[in-house]
Amino acid sequence: MNDDTKITQRASAKLPRGFGDRGPAEIAATEKMLAAIKESYELYGFEAVETPFIEFTDALGKFLPDLDRPNEGVFSFKDDDESWLSLRYDLTAPLARFVAENFDRLPKPYRSYRAGYVFRNEKPGPGRFRQFMQFDADTVGSASVAADAEMCMMAADTLERLGVKRGDYVIKVNNRKILDGVLEAIGLSGEANAARRLIVLRAIDKLDKFGPEGVKLLLGPGRKDESGDFTKGAGLDAGQQEFVVGLIDPQKAWEDHIASIDIRLADSEIGQEGRTELEQIAELISQAGYDDGRIRIDPSVVRGLEYYTGPVFEAELTFEIDGEDGKPIRFGSVGGGGRYDGLVGRFRGENIPATGFSIGVSRLYSALKAVRSPIVSAKPQQGPVVVLALDKGELPRYQKFVSALREAGIRAELYLGQSGMNAQLKYADKRGSICAVIQGSNERERDEVAIRDLALGAELAGSSKDRADYLELRAKAQFAVPESGLVAAVQEVLARH
Amino acid sequence: MNDDTKITQRASAKLPRGFGDRGPAEIAATEKMLAAIKESYELYGFEAVETPFIEFTDALGKFLPDLDRPNEGVFSFKDDDESWLSLRYDLTAPLARFVAENFDRLPKPYRSYRAGYVFRNEKPGPGRFRQFMQFDADTVGSASVAADAEMCMMAADTLERLGVKRGDYVIKVNNRKILDGVLEAIGLSGEANAARRLIVLRAIDKLDKFGPEGVKLLLGPGRKDESGDFTKGAGLDAGQQEFVVGLIDPQKAWEDHIASIDIRLADSEIGQEGRTELEQIAELISQAGYDDGRIRIDPSVVRGLEYYTGPVFEAELTFEIDGEDGKPIRFGSVGGGGRYDGLVGRFRGENIPATGFSIGVSRLYSALKAVRSPIVSAKPQQGPVVVLALDKGELPRYQKFVSALREAGIRAELYLGQSGMNAQLKYADKRGSICAVIQGSNERERDEVAIRDLALGAELAGSSKDRADYLELRAKAQFAVPESGLVAAVQEVLARH
Repeated sequence: MNDDTKITQRASAKLPRGFGDRGPAEIAATEKMLAAIKESYELYGFEAVETPFIEFTDALGKFLPDLDRPNEGVFSFKDDDESWLSLRYDLTAPLARFVAENFDRLPKPYRSYRAGYVFRNEKPGPGRFRQFMQFDADTVGSASVAADAEMCMMAADTLERLGVKRGDYVIKVNNRKILDGVLEAIGLSGEANAARRLIVLRAIDKLDKFGPEGVKLLLGPGRKDESGDFTKGAGLDAGQQEFVVGLIDPQKAWEDHIASIDIRLADSEIGQEGRTELEQIAELISQAGYDDGRIRIDPSVVRGLEYYTGPVFEAELTFEIDGEDGKPIRFGSVGGGGRYDGLVGRFRGENIPATGFSIGVSRLYSALKAVRSPIVSAKPQQGPVVVLALDKGELPRYQKFVSALREAGIRAELYLGQSGMNAQLKYADKRGSICAVIQGSNERERDEVAIRDLALGAELAGSSKDRADYLELRAKAQFAVPESGLVAAVQEVLARH
Repeated sequence: MNDDTKITQRASAKLPRGFGDRGPAEIAATEKMLAAIKESYELYGFEAVETPFIEFTDALGKFLPDLDRPNEGVFSFKDDDESWLSLRYDLTAPLARFVAENFDRLPKPYRSYRAGYVFRNEKPGPGRFRQFMQFDADTVGSASVAADAEMCMMAADTLERLGVKRGDYVIKVNNRKILDGVLEAIGLSGEANAARRLIVLRAIDKLDKFGPEGVKLLLGPGRKDESGDFTKGAGLDAGQQEFVVGLIDPQKAWEDHIASIDIRLADSEIGQEGRTELEQIAELISQAGYDDGRIRIDPSVVRGLEYYTGPVFEAELTFEIDGEDGKPIRFGSVGGGGRYDGLVGRFRGENIPATGFSIGVSRLYSALKAVRSPIVSAKPQQGPVVVLALDKGELPRYQKFVSALREAGIRAELYLGQSGMNAQLKYADKRGSICAVIQGSNERERDEVAIRDLALGAELAGSSKDRADYLELRAKAQFAVPESGLVAAVQEVLARH
């Protein structure tokens, strides 16, 4: 057997595709983001609730945004008693289960928020993970469009609290009832047309990407992309295509849009309902002053999830970042939501009005990092003070130095490896420490410790000062104090930086 | 078809066994606990790292504490490419994968901490969940027993920071090498005896519960419990039983224990190694003053996980709480850990020394709650100020009141349900609000708002004051101010409580 064919028993140290580890900087930044979002949601009167990661598959339902694979997209497994369990794929379906289960004891409307990881069993890609974090707020038990308008305003306030500048984002609002009216008007009602309706909605969702001509292809015969891949179309005729595209134009002025709806959807009850609701939302938003560009009606907004029944919102960042290929791209959606009056009702046999908004925390973190937003770009925390361990027989003595520092609230550790002094100082550097405590045999005999200012030491190594300055600096960079003066001396060094 | 046999299409609003929802009080308390633990771990120089919830099953290995079902106990599922994935069952196995994957770039020793939920696919029971939270710290790359001693001291410090009083807990320390020496001495070495070794270790682990006589039964012929259930024994003879029990007596003085080891394990290399390490740890702990009852050597500590290779620790609460049947019980273990020199090595083909400590956050929360510890028993947050919505046509006006309050940093919400004034005030009560803002048509005509002090109102309703007092109180419990004075008036009411 040669080396190439030798079988190794070693486990492989890697993660499945679409999963990632996170280091201290990302963890600290995410914590800051979560605190800011929580503050914003609480200011709006929402209270915390948390549901577990695992639910009965039945309870979650099949509401995945990936419409091509309605039965897939979820991590599922069988329990001992043969019932199917799934990892949550969003925070809305579990909330619906929670509200239905606790309906009688909850205040109504029930206003709650929750943050956490959700899981998608999908093909991962650049910036597309199979575990990512969301932060949701929901109002269950209110049919009022004021609840929807409030979600949009809170979304805007929250993005600003996260450091996204006004003008760098927009909350787009639409109403699924208008789109339902459009589908009705072109003859796509009824169970038999469900699949085609989804193709039409998916086509509309692509307006941003392909423009009106591209959408028409998707509504009609189908569309071939640059790589030659063909996407099957909905098979609508030219008149139907025009009809749809005429009602989803985001450039059209608000009054013109309303006029279009009144003409083209005059006979659609659901379309008119949608129009009225959208007007009410627009009125509330305008009265509150959020129509200054923060919130905008956009008739092309669809939101993929099947369960939306009324107003839908999309939070988009409008600034550009460098794409994979170096070309600037618009970052796009970092959250969204809408009204889902049927979701709690699945459990209760009666519809319960509900609306919610979800921030894609992981996506937003990537965006804020790309533009070096202060909330995610803070200087990394300084490393701990490192007490060197030069003589293994003196560990208890070193340990006492460490304890004294910690008792004074100073982050500190005893070097616990096997290496010599230079490697120990390198370790302290690698940890980002700015102070090391050293006691060799000379210092020990005099009951002293040497305090080394690692930051100043690094400066000194690169300096070209004249001799007097150099000596002065060198005396500051490392100096001895009696053991009893350890804490004060370390505090002095820490205060320098 | 009668009603009994009618098939219902409703999904069932319930959770799988062993999973639970958490409300605002538990979430807030857990956050406080996590912050305290983090503070403690950082003071010791550990830095944050986070791994995902899902790993390759192979990477996690089969190190579950439930030794009866080595292949079970984990939630597993197949990926698209047929590889097996699992939900993490602890935070140690994923850390080992992380360190192995990033070995060259990490500082060594690598000191890290992480908190998060872990999952066990086990039969749930009272206080036994299938999703629970742990908070771990680990030092990888240090073979020094000072790293183990530090874990024990940090465990003690952390429990005290969490509000557990000195004397209410103990960190017990032992060394698996001594137990390995015991197993060797009674002839249970070698692959062929692996199963019997596990039975012996499991028997030793029951000393707390069954006492020495019970352990002897488990070591020997087996033991029948009160319900008549029989547990098969290890089949050791009387001499072997005595030998084992003599070396695990937690009541024995430290010097006597060492003497026992020196006599009975004189020929066991591994046993002597364990003795030396345990002595070194005891010395470090004593020098640091933690031998005052905070940390104690206990030769009966086993820790279930198969991967421990040296020192093992167990954090136990020593106070009693009311058990399920009302009888007081000792709460027991809330954390533990130990040295696992082989775990990172599984990926690298060479052993990497490592030691760690894990707090069972969910278990500790239950314990702290049972004794009403301040950290988990804070008064619930006050509810938001509720602005009543008495006239649906005036929502934009009410909305402005809410916005003004929020701009002043006051948590506030607009009532968004359909009910009348009394139900709206009841809603505010249910939310724990202490202030409501009311504008009926009378107030509106005068551009005023009425501020109601709900806390004072409740007091008033139950009071038997004389008339003058009553009127004065009533005037304070609800009063009108101009709209422009809204924020100041609400602030005044909030400041009262």
